[in-house]
Amino acid sequence: MDKTNIGTHLIIDAWDCPHELLNDKEAITQAMIQAIKEGEATLIDLTVHEFSPHGVTATATLAESHIAIHTWPEYGYFAADLFFCGEGKPHKAMEHLEEALQAGKYKIQEIKRGFAPNQPESLQTLEVVHEPV
Amino acid sequence: MDKTNIGTHLIIDAWDCPHELLNDKEAITQAMIQAIKEGEATLIDLTVHEFSPHGVTATATLAESHIAIHTWPEYGYFAADLFFCGEGKPHKAMEHLEEALQAGKYKIQEIKRGFAPNQPESLQTLEVVHEPV
Repeated sequence: MDKTNIGTHLIIDAWDCPHELLNDKEAITQAMIQAIKEGEATLIDLTVHEFSPHGVTATATLAESHIAIHTWPEYGYFAADLFFCGEGKPHKAMEHLEEALQAGKYKIQEIKRGFAPNQPESLQTLEVVHEPV
Repeated sequence: MDKTNIGTHLIIDAWDCPHELLNDKEAITQAMIQAIKEGEATLIDLTVHEFSPHGVTATATLAESHIAIHTWPEYGYFAADLFFCGEGKPHKAMEHLEEALQAGKYKIQEIKRGFAPNQPESLQTLEVVHEPV
């Protein structure tokens, strides 16, 4: 079973975020919950973990697949990925995350999951916004 | 803060797996736990969810970042992604997943996270094995 477009996987690298926001467990939890809502997805389970001395990871298991975010406050950087199968709106969810965490610039890669090896549909860089280096 | 190699993110699309294995919550739970062990990673939280009528999602929050797997038994297909920062061995963890779930063929993409937009280091397709189409 190849060439099936199972879903969309968005990979985000975001920089120039306020350091204190990336270390705020409650703000990140709320950003995730609102992103899931805007993405019209269904939450099954949300794990949020605060690292010492800094950094937060949040992993949302969805009926549609998952969203995960990992922050490095010391770099003003976060990494997120959003994998949605079905009817959800991963781009809307992603937009909420980058807005809520006030990313100064970010890179997005979009991967179509489920395609056979070497098919060109399976990988594309979607967009780069805000001061690409 | 750009050009930082924060970590390695492996994206796997795997086909030709035994359908019953992809619907076996306990087998997938054990495959995840062993993959984390082989990857020398530290588990913070593991969520495993069984869908009706079929399909399993498992999301592991790690000290190193995360592993997520989503199965479609009806297609003999699973999608996994493994994001490791630090000292872990994501390729070892990945190899265990594809072996434990008996993938007949699979595609792997490796993304270096944390690099600035448009840097060639940030994206490469690592390998395709077993009957690439």
